[in-house]
Order: sequence, then C-alpha cells, then structure tokens
Amino acid sequence: MDEFSVIRRYLAAQEVVRDDVRIGIGDDAAVVEPPAGRQLVMTADVLVSGVHFPPATDARAIGHKALAVNLSDIAAMGAEPAWATMTLTMPDTDATWLTEFCDGLFTLASRYCVQLIGGDLARGPLAVGIHLVGFAEKVLSRAGATPGEAVYVSGELGDAALALAVVAGNVEAAGTDAAFERLNFPTPRVELGRALIGHAGAAIDVSDGLVADLGHVAQASSVAIEIELDRLPLSRAYRHHFEHMGWDGAAAFGDDYELCFTAPLSAPISEVAELVGVPVTRIGQVKQGSGVSLRQGERWWSPASGGFSHFD
Amino acid sequence: MDEFSVIRRYLAAQEVVRDDVRIGIGDDAAVVEPPAGRQLVMTADVLVSGVHFPPATDARAIGHKALAVNLSDIAAMGAEPAWATMTLTMPDTDATWLTEFCDGLFTLASRYCVQLIGGDLARGPLAVGIHLVGFAEKVLSRAGATPGEAVYVSGELGDAALALAVVAGNVEAAGTDAAFERLNFPTPRVELGRALIGHAGAAIDVSDGLVADLGHVAQASSVAIEIELDRLPLSRAYRHHFEHMGWDGAAAFGDDYELCFTAPLSAPISEVAELVGVPVTRIGQVKQGSGVSLRQGERWWSPASGGFSHFD
Repeated sequence: MDEFSVIRRYLAAQEVVRDDVRIGIGDDAAVVEPPAGRQLVMTADVLVSGVHFPPATDARAIGHKALAVNLSDIAAMGAEPAWATMTLTMPDTDATWLTEFCDGLFTLASRYCVQLIGGDLARGPLAVGIHLVGFAEKVLSRAGATPGEAVYVSGELGDAALALAVVAGNVEAAGTDAAFERLNFPTPRVELGRALIGHAGAAIDVSDGLVADLGHVAQASSVAIEIELDRLPLSRAYRHHFEHMGWDGAAAFGDDYELCFTAPLSAPISEVAELVGVPVTRIGQVKQGSGVSLRQGERWWSPASGGFSHFD
Repeated sequence: MDEFSVIRRYLAAQEVVRDDVRIGIGDDAAVVEPPAGRQLVMTADVLVSGVHFPPATDARAIGHKALAVNLSDIAAMGAEPAWATMTLTMPDTDATWLTEFCDGLFTLASRYCVQLIGGDLARGPLAVGIHLVGFAEKVLSRAGATPGEAVYVSGELGDAALALAVVAGNVEAAGTDAAFERLNFPTPRVELGRALIGHAGAAIDVSDGLVADLGHVAQASSVAIEIELDRLPLSRAYRHHFEHMGWDGAAAFGDDYELCFTAPLSAPISEVAELVGVPVTRIGQVKQGSGVSLRQGERWWSPASGGFSHFD
C-alpha cells in the first residue's frame, strides 16, 4: 500500500461527518465553518513509540491515547472539541495495525463528534502527532485560581503510575489489568470541563503529575496551593500495590488525565459532578503565596519533584 | 535544559504577537479569536530527519522548511495564514541547534504574521510536525478546474530535483548553490494564492511533482489536463545539468513549492502575477476527459509516474 492508498482506505474512512466541514481530507488543506462568536481552542500532542508508549503497545490503544491526550487538554480549557489533523509517521504500512489504530482513534473521535479533516502520512519512526481544535464561549485557564478557593480532582489517581511500574519491572503484573486499561485507554473529562465553566477558577489536566501540574497552576495564578495527601482519591489497585510506599507515586506521576481544578467553596461542584457522572474529590485549598505544599497529618512540606519532563 | 526551559527560552520567545491571540504558549491549549464570517483553513505536515531532509541539514533550513511546506498548502487554498502549533521531537537539546532552528522558523513566521501558539516538545527521533491554521472568505480547491481553462505554474521548476540529485551523488555539486538554497529555503507563494481568489478555478502546490499534483487536480475536478513540456519554466541550473536528460525530472520531482493553477483565458493572470511580483507561466490547458497528458512537439503521451509517495 502506498501513501495515498493508506489515506483513502484507512484515514479518510471515518464515519463521523460534521456538517461544519466544507473540505475534509484530500485537498491542500481542510476548510471548516466555525460557529459565530466563539473563541477557538487549539492543542497539539505527539506520542512517540518507545518514549510515550512501549513499542509492543496495542495499536488500538495508540490510536485512542493519541487523541485522548489532546481531548484532555481541550477538556481542561472547558471547550468543545471539533476538528483534528494528524501527522502519522511509521516505518511501514501494515493492514492489521492500521485497522486497529484507526478503530481506537475513530471510536474515541465518534464519542466526541471529532472529525479527522487532514494531516500528513510519511515514512519514519512510529509517532502520532494530533492537533485538535475546538471552540468555547468562555475558557478555563491555569491562571484563574484565587486564594480561598478549594482544589478538586476528578476520578482516581495512581493507576497509570502502577501500570508504568509494572512495565518497568518494579511491580508484579497480577491484578493490574484495570490499571493498564486506564494507562492505555484514558478517559478525557470533556463533559466535566465544559460543565465547570462559570464555576471553576482554574483548571489543568493531570498529565505531568498532580504536584507538577498544580505547580503550573500556582505559578500561572500567582498563588500557593496546599494539598492534603490523605484526601487523594487513590485507586484501589494503587493502594494495594503501593500501600507500603505511601502516596508519593500517585502525586508525582502523570498520565492519569484527570482534571484538577479550583473553585470557590460556594460553587455547586458536587451537583456538577453528579450531573456529568464523574466523581470529584476535594483535595486541598488555594492560599496567598507561591508554590505547592503537601500535608499529611501534622507534617507539611514542599515537594522537590517537578513531575515528568523530557530531557531531564 | 529540560523540556520547560527549552519551551521558555526558545519556542515561546517569538517576537510576533498577533492581537487575536488570547492565550498562547503555556496553558493546556491556546485560545484565539477568529475573524467573523470567515472559513478556517487547516493543514499539517511533518518533516522527518533522514526522510524529508538529510540528517546534516542546517537547523535554520529545517525550521524554515517545516513552516514553508505548510504555508505552501495554505497558499494553494488562497487563504491567509495565522496560527501554528508544533510537535517537535528530538534526541537531545542543543542550544546552538535550537537557536538556529527557531531563527529559521520565526524569520519565516514573521514574514506572514504567523504566531506559534502551542504544541508539544518530547524526546524522540528528530521530526518537526507543524499544524497551521488560517482563514479565508473564499478558498481555491483542487476540484474547481473547468474544461477550456489554461494551466499555469508560478516561478521556476527543477531546482529541488537538481539539489536532490546532488545529495544522491548523481550530479556534481559545482554550480548548484542556488538550487540548494531553493531546496532548503523554499518560498511559499502566499501572496499569489490570495491574489488568485476570484480568478483561478483550481490550485495546488507542487509538492509531490508537477505531473502527480496535476493528476490530483484532474481527478478532483473530473477533467483532463494537457501539459506542453517545452513551456515548463525550468531553472537555468536545472537546464544546464539536465539538458541531456530532458525535462522529466522537473515534471516528476516535487519539493518546488510553486503554485500550479487553472484559470479562464480571460482572467487577468499576468496582471495578478505582476502585482504580487511572482512570475507565472502558462504551461497547458484543461480539457474534457481524465488524467494528465504531456506533449513535446508532435509527441503526446500519458506519464506513468505518480510522483513521490511514501511506502511505494
């Protein structure tokens, strides 16, 4: 299969067709009609084989996750995702791999009515770059946290850290299937993000690690953030395997793709959480000052870990 | 330098600041305010080291070309470029390389008032993915060619083919500096593309090779296209080195990033060309039928070459 056959048979075969797309895959560029009076929200993330996922990862998971990490960024802005382009490089074309990759990608895309409208396919090491564009009337930024607000996180933390520990050979694999499912098929919190508009002060998705990501919020908002570790919603599997090690991993590792946000104590966060069907836990508070500090019982400290960073 | 230092010192240091950008680099996603009543035009291309350029290529050229190939796609739609995101993967961080890469990228970006508003930086094999978004009231597509129109191409053809022949060791390097300059620093025809709105029927940029690209136009427009080879505006250096081989290379090789378009004979193409200061040459005509055919003197034939395709 040459480049154009792969595009025609696989990448242009998505079933979602948005009615605001004027020209999709197949011209020099795609053309869309954005809704009037909205801001555009744009993000791009790349997943590289051997860096972001082990080379043997299921192609379906690669397709899912490449879009999910971008949806998670759009969710953290409280925006509605719409159009995606993809730069896909791979060493050769394999029909089974492409079928599974597109199944993972397009199944998730359908759930959020995202259409793949263009991109580039080339020979190279396996890497998937997705650029996702959405829109919003108002957005949540990292810079909106205010002293006095509470800090919340959605869902559960720690499953990605647990699965990565198995991959690294530090933990036995038994009983970690659910953790791998979450590492490979993260659920972006798009509905929650949109529902938080008007209620939350600042929001971020947990990709670099909870402490590091809240560090970004503290810096962008010029505030201090205090986290009470005993409140962290650690997953059952994480607690089981890491009980002896404490909560450190879950607070330091990323890849959970939950939303972390701040909101006034008066905001109806539990109602919002119930409405969108996503559990939300209060884990700390915003104060005057700077940086992130952690508390467990009577012990307070400032973590040294900056979370995950490439080229560290 | 870790990931965040590189972003801060290099990627977020662009001087162009568009007044329609509400949130640029540094949040979960970027936010822009699109102009009312326009369509959005989106494209994405990736350049991979060792595939799209030799590993020893000047970093300034890599930065320039990664954006230029996307600008060329936006040009072929007749649109105005505006916002870019970039997925950059590289094996390590090198201050000199980053300085030169950003110089190449941002010098070209400034010329077209394009702002880099976000993206992703990660460890991996050297590859640059750029996603470029622009806007337009009306666009040129590949599907607008009509029988009776003439076929035009901008600038000169063949320099990229010549430089690639030097890289492959098939041609002596003497006298090919200008050809390398064009291979490494192609000039996207953005002004010409915009000026053709209302005059041209169909347009495409010459990236896969003139014959292959006109094949895309013929197919999308359901027409036949005839090219008169003696009219091709071959560069002087190309003529010098390939006189004995004829025009084949220039018609078959891509990477020239000129615009090829169709327009009625009554359209003021020479005035448009003069206005934007880009030479334009009439090279053929649109007929009823299908496919691309070539003529030289009394000889007519249909080329077999489909131009460049990955995974061939």
